[in-house]
Amino acid sequence: MDVIDLLKRHRSIRKFTNEPLEDELAESIISSGLSAATSSNLQGTTVIRVRNPETRAAIAELAGGQAYVETAAAFFVWCADLHRSAVACEMAGGEFHGGMTEHFIIATTDCAIAAQNAVVAAESVGLGICYIGGIRNDPAQMTELLQLPDQVVPLFGLCLGWPDQDPALKPRLPLSVTLKDEVYNEVDDRAGITAYDEQMREYYRERTGGKVDRTWSADMSSLLGKESRPHIRSYLDSQGMNQR
Amino acid sequence: MDVIDLLKRHRSIRKFTNEPLEDELAESIISSGLSAATSSNLQGTTVIRVRNPETRAAIAELAGGQAYVETAAAFFVWCADLHRSAVACEMAGGEFHGGMTEHFIIATTDCAIAAQNAVVAAESVGLGICYIGGIRNDPAQMTELLQLPDQVVPLFGLCLGWPDQDPALKPRLPLSVTLKDEVYNEVDDRAGITAYDEQMREYYRERTGGKVDRTWSADMSSLLGKESRPHIRSYLDSQGMNQR
Repeated sequence: MDVIDLLKRHRSIRKFTNEPLEDELAESIISSGLSAATSSNLQGTTVIRVRNPETRAAIAELAGGQAYVETAAAFFVWCADLHRSAVACEMAGGEFHGGMTEHFIIATTDCAIAAQNAVVAAESVGLGICYIGGIRNDPAQMTELLQLPDQVVPLFGLCLGWPDQDPALKPRLPLSVTLKDEVYNEVDDRAGITAYDEQMREYYRERTGGKVDRTWSADMSSLLGKESRPHIRSYLDSQGMNQR
Repeated sequence: MDVIDLLKRHRSIRKFTNEPLEDELAESIISSGLSAATSSNLQGTTVIRVRNPETRAAIAELAGGQAYVETAAAFFVWCADLHRSAVACEMAGGEFHGGMTEHFIIATTDCAIAAQNAVVAAESVGLGICYIGGIRNDPAQMTELLQLPDQVVPLFGLCLGWPDQDPALKPRLPLSVTLKDEVYNEVDDRAGITAYDEQMREYYRERTGGKVDRTWSADMSSLLGKESRPHIRSYLDSQGMNQR
């Protein structure tokens, strides 16, 4: 298999067959994920596998009614975790200087890198995946449901299962916009965004039989034209993260 | 090639041959990276390729004297970017509500996910990689060097090149510690950390001919027993990120 082709073929999958995911394969996928690079070997990631249907239903609901959280063969919550490192620090007789924004960046980055490695492992065996950022709609409830200690934050969910749909590839912004030489030169960005807007308009039209007429710029305007999860900052603070 | 094997064989590479990396392959790798999932299609990632030897030398130095930033065939800076989305928002007639911590999480997560996809693409063709978190030692200087606008933050660097070393795999924490069922149950964590400490002690001994006697807990104590990049919070604020 050509890995680059596999990566370029990524689509999120939101409809799964009933076929289960064997524990051994699931563990191999998570283990592949956690083999990724990690900042100063901190390994700031904890993965929680949720099987309980009631917990899954609660998460599906708080994520905004994403039913595939319930129907996916497996569902994992990826947490940015400094708690374990704090425990290790104490075991070695050290004093933990927690709460720094840099720690939060390290753990968040570690966690996202590990999760994407797991995603590639999953897709390489034919599984479909869908990230669930919607768990950040109610991180306090997630914290209660998963009994997370201080210094552990639920970053996103991940559905894994055998695909029961074959959606079209969603176009990406052109490299002329996203890959720059030497400095952040944005002289061609507006032209690139305009071209991408037309490409996305066509993508939406084709997917909806002409019913949806939208562009990327309009999507960004909807998304960023209002406050986004304003509770996150105080939630992180209450978990001892991103404080200073 | 078995992708799961590839992922589990990851080591960071810090010594490269002089062989160049062709632009076409480099672009295919970055494009693979940017094919990864992105939150609400925000695509909050900008990649800046740095070729200029003087800029590379400046980055190697501010990252703490990491010479491989200069010697790698290619060096990229991965930026969490909301600026482009703000431009799109304006193009669509919207008003950008920036500066939120949630935006920062979205862009940081998008960027890390895309970078790791690019890493897998690179490793699949035999390239070696090394992430450079050290660029956060002096993000203000990075911002000046790369002429980053507001709402763009340099998250980490990435060296790519053809390996000229074959380092041993670094063990990871056992899954008994990092993968949990249903809830964050940490009853076995200290035993798992103790076992890993012994494994890491052996790893360091073997790598250094017995000269280094260290454990993971001791590493965590060194790392977290002091402040970590305390300038990051005010830097982010000055870039219009993670403000509220």
